[in-house]
Amino acid sequence: MISRVNVAVTPSFVAIGLRGLVVVVIDVLRATTTITRALENGAQSVIPCLEPEDAIAVRNRLGRDRVLLGGERGSQKINGFDLDNSPASYESAIVAGKTVAFTTTNGTRALQRVGHAGATAVFCGSLNNRDAIVTAIASVDAREALLVCAGQDGEFSFEDFFCAGAIASMCSERFPDVALSDASLAAAVTYRNGEHRVAEAIASGEHAQSLAALGFFDDIVEAARLDISAVIPAYRDGEIFRR
Amino acid sequence: MISRVNVAVTPSFVAIGLRGLVVVVIDVLRATTTITRALENGAQSVIPCLEPEDAIAVRNRLGRDRVLLGGERGSQKINGFDLDNSPASYESAIVAGKTVAFTTTNGTRALQRVGHAGATAVFCGSLNNRDAIVTAIASVDAREALLVCAGQDGEFSFEDFFCAGAIASMCSERFPDVALSDASLAAAVTYRNGEHRVAEAIASGEHAQSLAALGFFDDIVEAARLDISAVIPAYRDGEIFRR
Repeated sequence: MISRVNVAVTPSFVAIGLRGLVVVVIDVLRATTTITRALENGAQSVIPCLEPEDAIAVRNRLGRDRVLLGGERGSQKINGFDLDNSPASYESAIVAGKTVAFTTTNGTRALQRVGHAGATAVFCGSLNNRDAIVTAIASVDAREALLVCAGQDGEFSFEDFFCAGAIASMCSERFPDVALSDASLAAAVTYRNGEHRVAEAIASGEHAQSLAALGFFDDIVEAARLDISAVIPAYRDGEIFRR
Repeated sequence: MISRVNVAVTPSFVAIGLRGLVVVVIDVLRATTTITRALENGAQSVIPCLEPEDAIAVRNRLGRDRVLLGGERGSQKINGFDLDNSPASYESAIVAGKTVAFTTTNGTRALQRVGHAGATAVFCGSLNNRDAIVTAIASVDAREALLVCAGQDGEFSFEDFFCAGAIASMCSERFPDVALSDASLAAAVTYRNGEHRVAEAIASGEHAQSLAALGFFDDIVEAARLDISAVIPAYRDGEIFRR
């Protein structure tokens, strides 16, 4: 059982060695929300890819009938891809049984960064599966939980910090012996201040506002729904499966 | 007049170029609180030094009658130094007219990091001089304010983030056209949650708790006093003067 929760406010804070840690990668708008939805709706797995070419290579390797291409650049669907980065696009009828080769600006890079650093387990967290993630954290034999905010182009992202706070806050309520680092304490305060109006809270950040201006306001509303999914996306050997 | 306030949660977030920015370095426990107090009590200047040897070299260069050695390692006074890092140690009778060669674990390193990056102005901020710092920010012809948290050994520090939030929050109240970045928005939320019990709030962080355990609880109480000083410590060419 963990004894402490820490938050990396961007992936650059992640140390080279993550041995003994259970890591949760958070990209609320929208990668980890969308990955959770894809697995919820029956996708067999998600393979995070750094570049669109890498996703296409995955499809060429595994076959067109098995693989869908998903993700975004500049928040928009990539040319020639099957799916964008909106959770609502990942309907059962489309994704069931498929592997999604997935590339986004921040989330998949954060996953790549933590993927090979020896963590005990790596999960994808969002507000949608917050409760399930807290249960998963507690089930792993690890020293500490490290909640890694994907951030926005290397910068602090309000909604990811808010979600880290939602997870840290619930850990601290359920497991009173677990200590909060300074970053997770501030994140928990930020979350508790907005927990009764989550969509409004996460919509107040600059990234959310730019996403809303591009027509993706519905994604913010979707991403703000707390504890609607029991899916625990677990990342291992380059691929994310439902745990 | 600035159009936006941003927060660097640790100095590692500070970009190489700071042109067009007014920078506020924040190390609430205790460097920037203590620097403010030293100037308040009549010190002529403070020279931030990376290492104790650098501080001794400053004294050798400028003369023993003019220079006091101040600072800490492991939170404690350095062997052979005149003063530790407690604001209360910097009494008028001791510091008036003197230059303090000053070295601390986090604060002076943060100052060194931003010192030569071309910022329009660099100030030292704390809760004690928050109001004066907001006035100073508004008086500078800069595009943006960047509030740099000194942090703790490269990690996020709750009290510095809280103080950044106190400054960001007051900027946003006084100048409604000023935008808050995601980091400064989260910092402002963290501050507002604790603004009516500041000492208690900043005492809740891990760094504050370790400082209290070492016998420095009074420093936390001193550092928590909002808006008690009109001093604006301005850093230029390696030296901090009262503006």
